[in-house]
Amino acid sequence: MTQTTQIVLARRPQGAVTSDCFRLERPALPALGDNQILVRTLYLSLDPYMRPRMTELRSYTPPFELDQPLTGGAVAEVLESRNPKFAAGNIVTGMLNWATHQVHDGRGLRKVERDAAPLSAHLGILGMPGFTAWHGMLRMGQPKAGETVFVSAATGAVGQLAGQLAKLQGARVVGCAGDDAKCGYATSALGYDACFNHRTETDYGAVLDRLCPDGIDVDFENVGGAIFHAVFARMKNFGRMVMCGAISEYQDSKPQPGPEKMFTIVQRRLRIEGFIVSDHMAGMGAFVTEVGALLKAGKIHHRETVVEGLEQAPTAFIGLLKGENFGKLVVKVG
Amino acid sequence: MTQTTQIVLARRPQGAVTSDCFRLERPALPALGDNQILVRTLYLSLDPYMRPRMTELRSYTPPFELDQPLTGGAVAEVLESRNPKFAAGNIVTGMLNWATHQVHDGRGLRKVERDAAPLSAHLGILGMPGFTAWHGMLRMGQPKAGETVFVSAATGAVGQLAGQLAKLQGARVVGCAGDDAKCGYATSALGYDACFNHRTETDYGAVLDRLCPDGIDVDFENVGGAIFHAVFARMKNFGRMVMCGAISEYQDSKPQPGPEKMFTIVQRRLRIEGFIVSDHMAGMGAFVTEVGALLKAGKIHHRETVVEGLEQAPTAFIGLLKGENFGKLVVKVG
Repeated sequence: MTQTTQIVLARRPQGAVTSDCFRLERPALPALGDNQILVRTLYLSLDPYMRPRMTELRSYTPPFELDQPLTGGAVAEVLESRNPKFAAGNIVTGMLNWATHQVHDGRGLRKVERDAAPLSAHLGILGMPGFTAWHGMLRMGQPKAGETVFVSAATGAVGQLAGQLAKLQGARVVGCAGDDAKCGYATSALGYDACFNHRTETDYGAVLDRLCPDGIDVDFENVGGAIFHAVFARMKNFGRMVMCGAISEYQDSKPQPGPEKMFTIVQRRLRIEGFIVSDHMAGMGAFVTEVGALLKAGKIHHRETVVEGLEQAPTAFIGLLKGENFGKLVVKVG
Repeated sequence: MTQTTQIVLARRPQGAVTSDCFRLERPALPALGDNQILVRTLYLSLDPYMRPRMTELRSYTPPFELDQPLTGGAVAEVLESRNPKFAAGNIVTGMLNWATHQVHDGRGLRKVERDAAPLSAHLGILGMPGFTAWHGMLRMGQPKAGETVFVSAATGAVGQLAGQLAKLQGARVVGCAGDDAKCGYATSALGYDACFNHRTETDYGAVLDRLCPDGIDVDFENVGGAIFHAVFARMKNFGRMVMCGAISEYQDSKPQPGPEKMFTIVQRRLRIEGFIVSDHMAGMGAFVTEVGALLKAGKIHHRETVVEGLEQAPTAFIGLLKGENFGKLVVKVG
């Protein structure tokens, strides 16, 4: 009989997530049924979109259930299989529990090669965050050479690729990030033309006027709130605002109003469009081929923060929501 | 020497437009130069979008110039021509001065048949407002059978066709208008499934919950402000908000904030898109053919308010901004 260590949702947060929202448990796992597999988690992905799932919102994914394990993107090794599609030793990626081990029916899991890339890359640059950046920037934002692109959370798991892809299209790319080291990384390694620290800058309108004097053609929005409002007011005619996330709003106990003068959308013919990348999985193959090749050719960079041990996941997630990670945040479990 | 009567912009409004923003003048017109024509205005179109042009906004059309005639859609008769494309007696439509007569180079004017439709229809159901409804609803909103569509300003020059076109697609159509008579017209003549009076209803959220219990798939936005905010909160997954205008915001001296929880755009994958129909003139021919046929077949209805005399245009325009017109507002000049 296999035992697992897992983290369950102990209570729903009100405002900021705190450690008592989580509880560690060590239940025994059932024996494998037909078509089931036993997997051992190697890496777990922590992503901002998980925060809305902790609350009972009308949202795109059902909320996490109380007293049940949280789930997220993961890379795992198959230990035992009674499913003909998987064999012991396979490496798989997909949505799994915050757990060291689990019994799974294999649905939604995808096999990946053990040595094609560092395994954690399947949770970042070659996984959902990378695919999110690729779909949002290239298929929705469609930046053209000479246009100005703004990326909030410029060095985050999604932003770091979004900015580089815009740069490869010949756009001028400006971002913001939460400390000077991240801003330095954005301009030196990722190729951003400029990046400002949104914690030390106080007047977002003024800094955008300085860094994007002609306005903004494409906004890749990860943050929301005051930065989004300042960008909205500076969008150019026919501008596209790709709404990927709004991390600054996830922990609000009182909802924030939107930007002033919604008539701007008419005057400047803006297109503001939200997306959830799981609606667009048909593009995943093209993304992996394209970005995998860029990665192999050394044309894109990426950075991750690796935290060791499943029991560190809650603290790391709380830090993620405060912007304490640098690049993609993963937990090394196995 | 021909004299004209014209109305010029005497001062820019602060907040609500008042009659002292306008001044009547009777200048003499110059003799015709090469390629010029002399036209006599028959009908002048009054439309809400003119209000932003009275202010010095960064807008899609340059603002009206102080001490120069206001301009707008018009139907006119050619009295004299030194332009080979036009002959005396032609009826033309296009952007003209608020004037009884003017000298014009003919650019942007389109000839229309004298008897194909009542001449004022070229300013409404078969003109720019109709084309705006057709492009915005069918090409952008794309309502499908069984979907729920909301049209603010349901009986206005644009809304009246927007609602009928959505209905012809098999959608359920709900609107709002500024008095009970308009609401009655919307449901009895235009085929709306429901219409509420936005002056007597005070809780827009509650009335929308009652009339659109499953939420809204397509919003055709003409009004903005509190109604827009309530609709935004009730958009369904993959909803489209077609941003055509925001008449409730045009006279604000202080800008209004946008709706709460912009993250809704991500969660529900909304597309919010503004447009100016003059960017899409390539579709005008298809619109005239299609809507002309529907009109001839008695499949669509339309209503207009005709005001007599150019000198009445300022008062009528001030009333338009307060919603005093019923249907398309035109001034009979000639």
